[in-house]
Amino acid sequence: MKVKVQLDIKGLIESGNFRTLKTVLQQQEPADILELIDELPPDEKIVVFRLLQKDQAALVFSELEYDDQIALINLFKEERLREIISSMDPDDRTELLEELPANVVNRLLSYLSPEDRELTLSILNFPENSAGRLVTPKCVELKPQMTANEALEKVRKEGPDKETVYTLMVIDETRKLLGTLELRDLIFSDPSKHVEEIMETEPVFVHATDDQEKAAEIMKKYDLIVLPVVDNEERLIGIITVDDIVDVIDEEATEDIQRMASMGTTYNSYFHVKPWHFFVKRLPWLVALLLIESVNGNVIARFEHILASLPVIAAFIPTMMDTGGNTGSQISALIIRGMALNEIKLKDWWKVLLKETLIGLSIAATLGVILFFRSMLISSSLQICFAVSVALSVVVIFSNVVGALLPFAASIFKVDPAVMAGPFLTTIVDVFGIIVYFLTVSQLLPA
Amino acid sequence: MKVKVQLDIKGLIESGNFRTLKTVLQQQEPADILELIDELPPDEKIVVFRLLQKDQAALVFSELEYDDQIALINLFKEERLREIISSMDPDDRTELLEELPANVVNRLLSYLSPEDRELTLSILNFPENSAGRLVTPKCVELKPQMTANEALEKVRKEGPDKETVYTLMVIDETRKLLGTLELRDLIFSDPSKHVEEIMETEPVFVHATDDQEKAAEIMKKYDLIVLPVVDNEERLIGIITVDDIVDVIDEEATEDIQRMASMGTTYNSYFHVKPWHFFVKRLPWLVALLLIESVNGNVIARFEHILASLPVIAAFIPTMMDTGGNTGSQISALIIRGMALNEIKLKDWWKVLLKETLIGLSIAATLGVILFFRSMLISSSLQICFAVSVALSVVVIFSNVVGALLPFAASIFKVDPAVMAGPFLTTIVDVFGIIVYFLTVSQLLPA
Repeated sequence: MKVKVQLDIKGLIESGNFRTLKTVLQQQEPADILELIDELPPDEKIVVFRLLQKDQAALVFSELEYDDQIALINLFKEERLREIISSMDPDDRTELLEELPANVVNRLLSYLSPEDRELTLSILNFPENSAGRLVTPKCVELKPQMTANEALEKVRKEGPDKETVYTLMVIDETRKLLGTLELRDLIFSDPSKHVEEIMETEPVFVHATDDQEKAAEIMKKYDLIVLPVVDNEERLIGIITVDDIVDVIDEEATEDIQRMASMGTTYNSYFHVKPWHFFVKRLPWLVALLLIESVNGNVIARFEHILASLPVIAAFIPTMMDTGGNTGSQISALIIRGMALNEIKLKDWWKVLLKETLIGLSIAATLGVILFFRSMLISSSLQICFAVSVALSVVVIFSNVVGALLPFAASIFKVDPAVMAGPFLTTIVDVFGIIVYFLTVSQLLPA
Repeated sequence: MKVKVQLDIKGLIESGNFRTLKTVLQQQEPADILELIDELPPDEKIVVFRLLQKDQAALVFSELEYDDQIALINLFKEERLREIISSMDPDDRTELLEELPANVVNRLLSYLSPEDRELTLSILNFPENSAGRLVTPKCVELKPQMTANEALEKVRKEGPDKETVYTLMVIDETRKLLGTLELRDLIFSDPSKHVEEIMETEPVFVHATDDQEKAAEIMKKYDLIVLPVVDNEERLIGIITVDDIVDVIDEEATEDIQRMASMGTTYNSYFHVKPWHFFVKRLPWLVALLLIESVNGNVIARFEHILASLPVIAAFIPTMMDTGGNTGSQISALIIRGMALNEIKLKDWWKVLLKETLIGLSIAATLGVILFFRSMLISSSLQICFAVSVALSVVVIFSNVVGALLPFAASIFKVDPAVMAGPFLTTIVDVFGIIVYFLTVSQLLPA
């Protein structure tokens, strides 16, 4: 029975106590080693890697952040690098290679055996973010005529080298996928039965060129832990395992949240991204929004005469902007998330429109009344209070409908609906809100 | 080999062709049936349920949205309801019961066998959103002294009734968790070896009272498909399977996105939530923000004299608000997501502060220069252009730092950092932005 201990890795490295460090490290799970070395500088990470077993080293290396991987590739001795690259799982290796510059990719590929090299190149040929990029070919393949007993023997023999043995693939001579067999059904079965009698004959699968989101949806829908991946002729390429899908789900949510905040997406964790990189991801959006927003200045400048005679009107510009933006942000977040989870489909736009018109009206009425009373604190003219509260109601109804429909519009033009949230929506809604506000006020308050 | 067909369920129900419908439905996966009946009204859903096998019915019913479940509970004949409730998985049953009113819960509990009732009540005793609520006790339990052969026999015998057989639990007489055993290791092992020789002796687990997010983190970290759940004395209660965790990950992301849009959270899908319910989830936030925002009006009213003499100043109020809000939204989304994924911890606040001061300065300088030139289109006074662009830079630096640090502040006060994003942050930043703007302008442009 093991117990938890505190380990001062930095101290052990600095005091040169590598024997202890080696013994302790080799008992750890890769995920724990990853955590232990996260804050070490690259030259100390290298020391740790030297003490790991080959497979451990490959697993830990696979899970490192991209900037650490780059740094270590440059620091490893060639022999060690060769070992690690060849021991990595094919899908992890592809993930690493797709981000590296071509000359490094070529060097790393030269370390692989001819079969591994061919395999890696074929995976790299699938589009980015496709299901094919997540494939591992390390699955157990059965023939339909095998008996359960023969199949189990094959699992016993080949299993230790495979990524999973819990879902087995049944294929014919041309590698066409005929079915899948759950290991549990194989174990519960009469040993003399044939694989084709106990297999699932209509297995769900994805094509290698399908988006990884589709793979995630299918695995969620059918509660799968393994999903077969086939080529255009439905020949088996390999499998995707649920742990990769869990990462995809997290990645997609991160991507949505970043897009909803109007910025370029970045998958590496915050402290592993250079400030310059964030600057580049964020600035273009802010500049674009600053330019879109310039409409506001021109609108307000046109109504300068009203402002000059009634400067209190300016005091409610922020109210229109904030409340309009807030209303729109709420509904757009709901719709975008609903679309991401496939609960809202493009054809549903009119149902959303009806529902949100109703909700928008109720919210607008309530907020209008509240603002009427609130505005009395600033202006003693009931006429102004009334005009301001009517304007707010119009802005709220408008923002609610626009916030609800913009994601659909994006979807029609094949733009990610998530882009239509937060800052982007707020800026659009503000422009209209200010126009509505000044028009309403200038109508209701003839100067 | 099966082929895909289009099925007009509504047509079959209306024409009374139940025999065909029954034959076809019984061949479908629960997830597919769910999709097929999603848009049927409750009284037609009932017809479909009548045609399903008991286990199928229980699985489909488990996955229905809450409003449909309620409707069906009222429509089912007592016998059918009893069958479905007793056949449901314990964790699905708990999820249903936790949302129902007490009198319905009591009725449903009375349909269960005494053991199932006790089990369900004990699960319901765990806190909401705890790991315990996801537990299923349907796992295979082994003793350490069993041989691999005996263990495999037990799996064969008990397996068909269990939720999974891929990770087996090893416990002692007091049910204390001693280890876990992967089915693959059991199969690959010498049949005469003892379970204790081949089991994982330091299994990861959660306590039933831990938050479900903790369970999700552990399963992600170690790529598990099954996680043991224990009580305070480390006695085994049951297991959590990865499909439930996938749902948790989606739910948590939905919750974060809704909180980031400043509204109450709701887990049901958009079309299964009544307009009134959304109104209630959204309105309180909008009202609170409308009241917080009232500070803006008072600040602007104080500077009325500047506006009366220089109404063009009002034209840049939206610029300060939008750009400040946009900058703050970007960084708060990054930090909140980083915290949710555990990549950013509370102790890291000063590192974030340093990094974001640097990034904020660069963004502020760039946007300031752009606004200087843009403002020339509205005002011919270079003095105004300069004042406006300085004010924007200050607002941007401020928003970036506040957007970065508010999630930490929330975290200290045990508030979900996600609340500190989007509308909430924008409103706060706007209040400060407007104060900064008018102070800067009134300093640089002595009236």
